Amino acid sequence: MTEHARRGVFISFEGIDGSGKSTQARALAAALPAQLTREPGGSEGAEEIRRLLVEGAASRWSAETEILLFTAARRDHLEKTIAPALKAGSVIVSDRFADSTRVYQGAARAALRAKVDQLHEAMIGLEPDLTFVIDMDPEIALRRGLARDSGEDRFESLGLDFQHKLRAGFLALAQEYPDRVRVIDGSRAVDAVAADVQEQARRFLSGGSHV
Amino acid sequence: MTEHARRGVFISFEGIDGSGKSTQARALAAALPAQLTREPGGSEGAEEIRRLLVEGAASRWSAETEILLFTAARRDHLEKTIAPALKAGSVIVSDRFADSTRVYQGAARAALRAKVDQLHEAMIGLEPDLTFVIDMDPEIALRRGLARDSGEDRFESLGLDFQHKLRAGFLALAQEYPDRVRVIDGSRAVDAVAADVQEQARRFLSGGSHV
Repeated sequence: MTEHARRGVFISFEGIDGSGKSTQARALAAALPAQLTREPGGSEGAEEIRRLLVEGAASRWSAETEILLFTAARRDHLEKTIAPALKAGSVIVSDRFADSTRVYQGAARAALRAKVDQLHEAMIGLEPDLTFVIDMDPEIALRRGLARDSGEDRFESLGLDFQHKLRAGFLALAQEYPDRVRVIDGSRAVDAVAADVQEQARRFLSGGSHV
Repeated sequence: MTEHARRGVFISFEGIDGSGKSTQARALAAALPAQLTREPGGSEGAEEIRRLLVEGAASRWSAETEILLFTAARRDHLEKTIAPALKAGSVIVSDRFADSTRVYQGAARAALRAKVDQLHEAMIGLEPDLTFVIDMDPEIALRRGLARDSGEDRFESLGLDFQHKLRAGFLALAQEYPDRVRVIDGSRAVDAVAADVQEQARRFLSGGSHV
């Protein structure tokens, strides 16, 4: 029995709004099958904290308060949803995890990245076993209308320049965490992307990821 | 112009539920006069986080998630209420601050104290200039009905043993931070306690605290 089989497997999806990462997370969870969850949220308490984060003006919280609220929501999500699934030996797929906080806050102000890491180390500690970054040019995401269809209206309000910074941040994760992060070209047809993700996930789960 | 006059003065009140600390905070703020605030809460956003903390079952959040939520609320309170008051040169009095988190979480599980301190250092950084610990035997607080009158129903649910641990935790603050923490005997008549607090606060504000 491999270590992964014993303790379950935690897979995360990351990327800019409109990259199709939520669609891909859903598709992989259905195909494997695996438990599907999301951030911010993913547990009853974390969904309530999510409401504080997404409702009201964008300037409502400072970046520092936001990091604390995201980490509080993540801690609850970890305790109530992710850890029990891993303990039961399940595969769990999350639409976003700590990498999103690293990239969004780091893109906003480089110095914040250290705070994010400090809080993560002190209060979370866990990284996904496998992370898919669904990569897409922000202009393609905008043209395809995926950003708007996702129901998240932050895409345009953040501005295209910021989206380019975010994309660069997600791509940099692959350099920083080469063992777990796979960059997936999200500009292809949805089914082609899904097939690619599924093939890589299955290979990882069968223990062949390092072959 | 002394340093205190330049940057305002931050005074906090601490103690177990029913010790009379809220009454004393109010009395001092009225007497000086000074701006009055409280934790958890004290700013619009922090009051919303407070609702997450005080509503629902006590077991709703783990101690770790609680620490993150308290620190998020404190960060907002600091940015929106305390820092602006200090910048304007005002005296601001808070009913509870970081010491409460130190004592409550430390009494629940000693190992949590290190997490509280780590988060405080990373995300808050500020300590009050002067802290009054209103000290009272938990059995006196219970007998006087102060705990119930305070509208906080946690007192009895936490149990008398835990209240004794909290009292010891607040008293230990005076050892840990001798420069800023004053222990006040709260078992006297309310007016006598208020006069004692007021006299010490005025002496501190006039710069005579170290004479």
